[in-house]
Amino acid sequence: MTQKITIIGFGTVGQGLCEILAGKKKELLEKYNYRYSIVAVCDPRFGTVYNAAGLDMERVIAELRADQKFTTDRYPWDALETIRNSNADVVCELAFTDLKTGEPAMSHCRTAFETGKHIVTSNKGPAALAYAEMKALAGQHNVDFRIEGTVMSGTPVLNLAEGPLAGCSISAVKGILNGTTNYMLSEMEQGLDYTAALEKAQSLGYAEADPTGDVEGYDARAKVTILANVVLGEKLSIDAVDCTGITALTAADIMAAKAENTRWKLIGSITRSKEGLTAYVRPERVPLTHPLAGIMGATNALTLTTDLLGDVTIVGAGAGKTETGFSILSDLLAIHRTETILPDNRL
Amino acid sequence: MTQKITIIGFGTVGQGLCEILAGKKKELLEKYNYRYSIVAVCDPRFGTVYNAAGLDMERVIAELRADQKFTTDRYPWDALETIRNSNADVVCELAFTDLKTGEPAMSHCRTAFETGKHIVTSNKGPAALAYAEMKALAGQHNVDFRIEGTVMSGTPVLNLAEGPLAGCSISAVKGILNGTTNYMLSEMEQGLDYTAALEKAQSLGYAEADPTGDVEGYDARAKVTILANVVLGEKLSIDAVDCTGITALTAADIMAAKAENTRWKLIGSITRSKEGLTAYVRPERVPLTHPLAGIMGATNALTLTTDLLGDVTIVGAGAGKTETGFSILSDLLAIHRTETILPDNRL
Repeated sequence: MTQKITIIGFGTVGQGLCEILAGKKKELLEKYNYRYSIVAVCDPRFGTVYNAAGLDMERVIAELRADQKFTTDRYPWDALETIRNSNADVVCELAFTDLKTGEPAMSHCRTAFETGKHIVTSNKGPAALAYAEMKALAGQHNVDFRIEGTVMSGTPVLNLAEGPLAGCSISAVKGILNGTTNYMLSEMEQGLDYTAALEKAQSLGYAEADPTGDVEGYDARAKVTILANVVLGEKLSIDAVDCTGITALTAADIMAAKAENTRWKLIGSITRSKEGLTAYVRPERVPLTHPLAGIMGATNALTLTTDLLGDVTIVGAGAGKTETGFSILSDLLAIHRTETILPDNRL
Repeated sequence: MTQKITIIGFGTVGQGLCEILAGKKKELLEKYNYRYSIVAVCDPRFGTVYNAAGLDMERVIAELRADQKFTTDRYPWDALETIRNSNADVVCELAFTDLKTGEPAMSHCRTAFETGKHIVTSNKGPAALAYAEMKALAGQHNVDFRIEGTVMSGTPVLNLAEGPLAGCSISAVKGILNGTTNYMLSEMEQGLDYTAALEKAQSLGYAEADPTGDVEGYDARAKVTILANVVLGEKLSIDAVDCTGITALTAADIMAAKAENTRWKLIGSITRSKEGLTAYVRPERVPLTHPLAGIMGATNALTLTTDLLGDVTIVGAGAGKTETGFSILSDLLAIHRTETILPDNRL
């Protein structure tokens, strides 16, 4: 069965996903018996293209490069109409993240579920603000809500907990969940002051023009909320996560920590104990002997505390076009696996 | 459907598995809709017990503690007869590892496959010596050969590559795969000489009375072979892996490395390049800034180099009764998932 895909939001991640899918078409078929067809792409900047039999994505991208808009197979649909009217099995929701309202992503997800389509998304909005609602609505319509890319891009965290760690009970997670601030702290240890470190992060594309979401810890707070809901199975609201960013840290603070064999890291943490749930994002001085102290630059890391395995730590990329594109592929393949395992076994 | 299990070899891992299954019975049913029944246990020291409707494991273990043998439901079967005659869906092969012949585990696996039973094992013999044969034979009989516990105990490596990392191409793996030697090297850095470090590892149960398999690197070499076959998809024979252990390392070597901000680690490595495959186990001086340098004590770590995600590192336990017991549970749940996904989705 060919998996039919609609892409909502054709920015870095959407284009990265298409490059990966095109480059791996043969490999994915041979290794996983995975066939896909992109039937619709919708972006407010470029318009909407749709072809129930599958778009010619090479042409779509060539026309986009030439004219900054979609041309052939063009339809006058907005995002919700595209989700509703397309014959997709899966909607890849790759529009921008809004952590205040969750929109427009939340409406995209609801419309997909209500019309019987899976959602795969790296958008933190719906998962951080309304995980329980999204999961329940998907369940009612017998489809999936997959969000690997919302935490540590494609580095497996949510799919690790769901699959290979199934059977373990996870009572705590703690880690470095924002690459931009970790990069800035690494640079400040090399002698840059806060402003210079931020400017360098912006020049490399790690930080946005308005860096508030990263440096105030809001991005990490959204990820902490998602981890609490998905990995620890708690109903934690984003407002219940204490949050302090790195804006008050000075070069002098960084150097003082270094002199005492410690290192400032922006830590996201959730702990379940008899007293209840503790969740926070804040800068902490980590001893240099601690595994998280060695995570430098834009790399992310997360330690999961389990009942049967003790601590398990995963370290990897936290962002990037290909890395986040892979998170989407990873979830598309997970949907494909659950839908094809029995027929394969029957052969 | 209840998963019916036969356990071959009732030592630390088998008993650890039974404790986990008993303790988590309700949780596994509620979270994963997983029901199990242990129908047979066979151990050359204790005899064989079998009950097609499921053994009363509490009684089996109580009788074993009292008399050092199995009593109720006793059958005069050896391991092969138990595998053949029992009505199990899955055989957990937990007999001792023999890296020269692979026996008796290899015969256990073959018999299970030929009688239509899945194998779940933490035994490195069959996987390190005959992975391709085992995988092919399992495939012919439409059953699974699952071996998560052969590398880093229950810390997900093989299931990580198979599941959450599916879609990535893995070109290299490098890590610390033997906890005993890593513990000894950590102790030597604290001032113990080689002999004292070995004695301490033996007193803690990390090293066996005959420590050859650990200190000569043979255990790590078997794991490198398994990783090459499973994770890199190469047909690598164990004899093709260059292998040097830690027996020549002196306290002076350890201190000399430390003085130069490096640390000796017993490294297992496989790299695929245009020139072919390079696989080895050997002590290397790792810079203290390298992520593997911070892995101390009996902990293991593995870095997987991928095309889409860059390097992904997983750190966790490399051995232990509960940790290896969990590796078996993890594979039992994986079999359960593939067999029940479609019926669940149909509800």
